[in-house]
Amino acid sequence: MTETGSAGSLQVIALDGIPEVRPGDDLASMLVAALQANPETQPLREDDVLVVTQKVVSKAEGALVDLTAIEPRPELVAFAERWDRDARQLEVVVREARRVVRMERGVLITETRQGFICANGGVDASNMGPESGNVVTLLPVDPDASAARIRAAVRLAFGVDVPVIVSDSFGRPWRWGITDVAIGVSGMLPLDDMRGTPDADGRIMRSTVRATADEIASAAELALGKTGRRPAAIVRGANPTRGEGRIADSLMPREFDLFP
Amino acid sequence: MTETGSAGSLQVIALDGIPEVRPGDDLASMLVAALQANPETQPLREDDVLVVTQKVVSKAEGALVDLTAIEPRPELVAFAERWDRDARQLEVVVREARRVVRMERGVLITETRQGFICANGGVDASNMGPESGNVVTLLPVDPDASAARIRAAVRLAFGVDVPVIVSDSFGRPWRWGITDVAIGVSGMLPLDDMRGTPDADGRIMRSTVRATADEIASAAELALGKTGRRPAAIVRGANPTRGEGRIADSLMPREFDLFP
Repeated sequence: MTETGSAGSLQVIALDGIPEVRPGDDLASMLVAALQANPETQPLREDDVLVVTQKVVSKAEGALVDLTAIEPRPELVAFAERWDRDARQLEVVVREARRVVRMERGVLITETRQGFICANGGVDASNMGPESGNVVTLLPVDPDASAARIRAAVRLAFGVDVPVIVSDSFGRPWRWGITDVAIGVSGMLPLDDMRGTPDADGRIMRSTVRATADEIASAAELALGKTGRRPAAIVRGANPTRGEGRIADSLMPREFDLFP
Repeated sequence: MTETGSAGSLQVIALDGIPEVRPGDDLASMLVAALQANPETQPLREDDVLVVTQKVVSKAEGALVDLTAIEPRPELVAFAERWDRDARQLEVVVREARRVVRMERGVLITETRQGFICANGGVDASNMGPESGNVVTLLPVDPDASAARIRAAVRLAFGVDVPVIVSDSFGRPWRWGITDVAIGVSGMLPLDDMRGTPDADGRIMRSTVRATADEIASAAELALGKTGRRPAAIVRGANPTRGEGRIADSLMPREFDLFP
């Protein structure tokens, strides 16, 4: 029996030396250069996954909004004043949303155009570079496509087809703190469905679907840190299921959602 | 500036060769033996974290229930019949719960005695050993204390104070698939509060509290797999904040919870 994703050891190698990313930059080439410069990552291996954080993907793609041009609606101005938020940023979140899931106690949770349910709709002001006090990043329009472009460039440069994950930091209900999850994938399935495979005793596991891409994103984050200096990492040995997965496969349709 | 938890590289080493754990077994000694037998883990380092899965902790502590002795209440019999569940197991979940959060469409989500909100209250039938078809594990009564006992034994054996996480696999709203999270900690804080520290541009990060223990649990799971053969791993290089943390510190009080 093959144990999906249980290599016994795992390594995460953060990529240093990636310069500040600006709109229009060729992020894939910058990542290729960082991989070439990092002897620990060479040669790339079939069991590598490249994790790239949302922030640099959004910046390179120009998924930016200058808040000085945003006129927030009165409802959001009142909410922002009460809870010490930036009403312009909340306005951007609502404009980017399919729907508002919760707006309470200073917290704005939306379903984004991409289908993610998260605080602030993935709109983020941190690590935007100096003198960018009024600029926020949006989520990439199609994070799977972002991942696919990077994957193609890495394959072209190194001749190895490495799956790519675009990651972002999301909060969760019931627990404090954020963990990194996958918001885009290419070259792998985001989930490993172990239903119907036997466990160590031969008992059929009924409900074990592992969110492999999310766990890989979290593992990468531990090596990257939160200051923005390291926007990408190689995760070696996780052995996700290869294939043309889409992040939408990991999103629960609303009819199954017990917390709408 | 010190970057909490951003070592630049991370390694996960799964521990093999741990025999089937039975009630009353000295799990800490079994883990010490597995560490001694694994040259990759030796010597243990100050930046190591030992992650141990809930299942073996519960087994060793005898946190087991034989379902043949359980008489489910009629409400749960009807729910179980409708959704093809084991009513006796659901009865155990409800008995172990502070409250039922959701009971819909075959899914039973409770708040456990320990304060975790999760499907099936952490009651689990997989990887229970051969000929154990009617036995389920409960969560450890006090997973922080479980972690502390293992930490003390490791410190005694190796002279290194390695933080310990007890991990379990939880689902999340809105996304398919389970990820491993921490249900007990010893020797570390479960969260790294980066609020008030500057990001790469010197901008003060307002809302970045990282669920470090949960990310470490997820990283470990990628090397452990789900079949139960590898119940523990060393995660090297995550550098969580040391201290006498409690898992309760990572649980959101109900008054902050937007999804009660």
